[in-house]
Amino acid sequence: MSLNDTPRGERWHIAVFGRRNAGKSSVINALGGQETSIVSPVSGTTTDPVYQPMELLPVGPVVLIDTAGLDDFGDLGQLRIHKTLRILNKADLALLVVDAACGAGEFEQELLRTIAAREIPVIVILNKMDLLAAAQGDQEGTRSEAARVEALLGRKPIPVSAAAGHGINELKTAIATALPRGEDRFRIVGDLLSPGDLAVLVVPIDKAAPKGRLILPQQQTIRDIMECDAVAVVTKEQELGHTLASLRRKPKLVITDSQAFLKAQADTPKDVPLTSFSILFARYKGDLPRLVRGVRAISGLRDGDRVLIAEACTHHRQSDDIATVKIPRWLREKTGRRLQIEHASGSEFPPGLEQYSLIIHCGACILNRRAMLHRMEEAANAGVPIVNYGVFIAYVQGIFPRAIEMFPSAMLAWEDEPGFG
Amino acid sequence: MSLNDTPRGERWHIAVFGRRNAGKSSVINALGGQETSIVSPVSGTTTDPVYQPMELLPVGPVVLIDTAGLDDFGDLGQLRIHKTLRILNKADLALLVVDAACGAGEFEQELLRTIAAREIPVIVILNKMDLLAAAQGDQEGTRSEAARVEALLGRKPIPVSAAAGHGINELKTAIATALPRGEDRFRIVGDLLSPGDLAVLVVPIDKAAPKGRLILPQQQTIRDIMECDAVAVVTKEQELGHTLASLRRKPKLVITDSQAFLKAQADTPKDVPLTSFSILFARYKGDLPRLVRGVRAISGLRDGDRVLIAEACTHHRQSDDIATVKIPRWLREKTGRRLQIEHASGSEFPPGLEQYSLIIHCGACILNRRAMLHRMEEAANAGVPIVNYGVFIAYVQGIFPRAIEMFPSAMLAWEDEPGFG
Repeated sequence: MSLNDTPRGERWHIAVFGRRNAGKSSVINALGGQETSIVSPVSGTTTDPVYQPMELLPVGPVVLIDTAGLDDFGDLGQLRIHKTLRILNKADLALLVVDAACGAGEFEQELLRTIAAREIPVIVILNKMDLLAAAQGDQEGTRSEAARVEALLGRKPIPVSAAAGHGINELKTAIATALPRGEDRFRIVGDLLSPGDLAVLVVPIDKAAPKGRLILPQQQTIRDIMECDAVAVVTKEQELGHTLASLRRKPKLVITDSQAFLKAQADTPKDVPLTSFSILFARYKGDLPRLVRGVRAISGLRDGDRVLIAEACTHHRQSDDIATVKIPRWLREKTGRRLQIEHASGSEFPPGLEQYSLIIHCGACILNRRAMLHRMEEAANAGVPIVNYGVFIAYVQGIFPRAIEMFPSAMLAWEDEPGFG
Repeated sequence: MSLNDTPRGERWHIAVFGRRNAGKSSVINALGGQETSIVSPVSGTTTDPVYQPMELLPVGPVVLIDTAGLDDFGDLGQLRIHKTLRILNKADLALLVVDAACGAGEFEQELLRTIAAREIPVIVILNKMDLLAAAQGDQEGTRSEAARVEALLGRKPIPVSAAAGHGINELKTAIATALPRGEDRFRIVGDLLSPGDLAVLVVPIDKAAPKGRLILPQQQTIRDIMECDAVAVVTKEQELGHTLASLRRKPKLVITDSQAFLKAQADTPKDVPLTSFSILFARYKGDLPRLVRGVRAISGLRDGDRVLIAEACTHHRQSDDIATVKIPRWLREKTGRRLQIEHASGSEFPPGLEQYSLIIHCGACILNRRAMLHRMEEAANAGVPIVNYGVFIAYVQGIFPRAIEMFPSAMLAWEDEPGFG
């Protein structure tokens, strides 16, 4: 169940690079073939990367991204190189596959420099070690090839034979080591809590909630609270006052669904920090101060300004109503301006970003934090303020500034002059 | 998301009966085609029922079961009749589709008697009303046909045209009315709580838990607590003592994962009821006193006795290790006997049930309560005690009798002489 249940944005993104025929797909299959199960890959054209979600022990849910093989930066079409390298915008880890029989060269050096410039951890894999050993008839040559690659690339390669399954466990361990540890990982709320703290969650149960279950952000928040040894007190909004009175200690914070914010605000003592799931998830997925500055830009909009509503998915959109009806209406109500509202969806912003006065971005459930930060950076480079649905809706519902008071840098952004992010 | 997330055992089961060509599949498609989304049906052979999960508003997640058409009890093979009628073992509601142009007869009368004997609510649907109206050229004939069917079957039929989409909203309302209401529904824990009560949940976070999420029974329990306006206090086992000390009021009960039972027992005051998720779910899905009697039968097992380990699914078994390794080992350790342990899986018990001395049944996540109760009844008819994994494991982990003390009828069963259920 967990395989299909984990949204892509919650998986580690591991991008696999290498020359054609270096064995990128074989490495991916070898990683997927043992203790893990493989979901059919999303098929792509030859030049499009293929996303392979899997449960990779001991790491957990990941998505391996099989990029198009690049032989030489000079030889190939710029489009293909561009498509391959832009995977780095979302990669948490890069694997560079080198064919042991062919060795490494300037191509691999250049690729490593590009990856290092993005501050992405990388693992060099020396694949097809079995073929090399067979060709050379001894182990000596394979050891010296590993040493040559290490000298050239400045990193100790992991020797594997994807076809024979050798070295795959060592590779898994290296992957687990290279990914950010639990304590380094960006958290939903765990960084705000100490062991034993009480966190009160206000969870309205309405007809939209799935029968007999909790929605994902509520689950993720409870789980994050458990992982830092704190206590989650879960209540409906009507019971909040009664619940707070039942606690012997003051809770560290109250987190409410945005739709219950006004009731939660009325019942939560002023000295208890109060925020919303949507604010926490905006922070978890992006740069909260920048999103708050995006909200501030709304009041500066003028007649004729162009606003881009951008969604990360192109298919199965469930939020047409939000993007095409509700947000435009709220914008009109808040600003009183005649705005030109445009829509875009997909993994890239449309060209000409600088012509917009504001970008309103979806919640980015299919993007990881790194990809969302990259998009925010693109907006900043074009000089366009950006806000996401969660922060925008929180603003429209009138829950600013209390919902961000616990985040000093977001409060500074709120108190700034309206302007660009 | 909720469509694929809802396990089949948590959906209302609605069985659709009728003669061949009465339009059973069209009725199902019409129900699925409007506000709902349809998942591809599980394909079956002509005589096997087809399960169509869908989100049926205003009811929620259901599975519609398209049975093979039966024209006449006498005309058809007994196997086909048997296969169709045994769907009644799990149906929460039956729909009987009558072709308005052909009318109803003894066949429908007989079917209704069979359904009524099982105390299953039923809705009679008069389909193809548009064809009847077109043939007769007026509305008069259609009204009198409905009256004729009502007189014959003793139930007011709902006139629909599945092909034209007429009457489908009325049918949905009738379905929502006929299914047990929220307050009549069997609950996980909500029947034990009053509004404002505190329920403490002890949730170990181990490596087996899905990354960043809660497992389904924990989610379902929290949701059920919310639905009765109580408060869920969620904590890891190490924090339980501290958490209880943080509450100003005594919790109504503590629910723990079985693996943390001994720690929870040590930290929970004697006057606070303590049970486990597995006991609550055994009660939710079946007859707890009978399962407790099944546990009691373990001590009466003798050398050479045959024990059946029965699982409801035939594919994607994730619990081979439980069924084939752990449970046999625990049985050996508890009894010291040489037992003949056999395995069965699928929707039917194997023939010759009476030769077994004990049945150990899986947690039945794909079965609804009605289906599980039916299987327990079959075991009782064969004179064989039955226990499920949850109660069996709770027993093996030494958490009896405290985990069932809050259920008087289960305690009576525990204090009974060991014997048959």
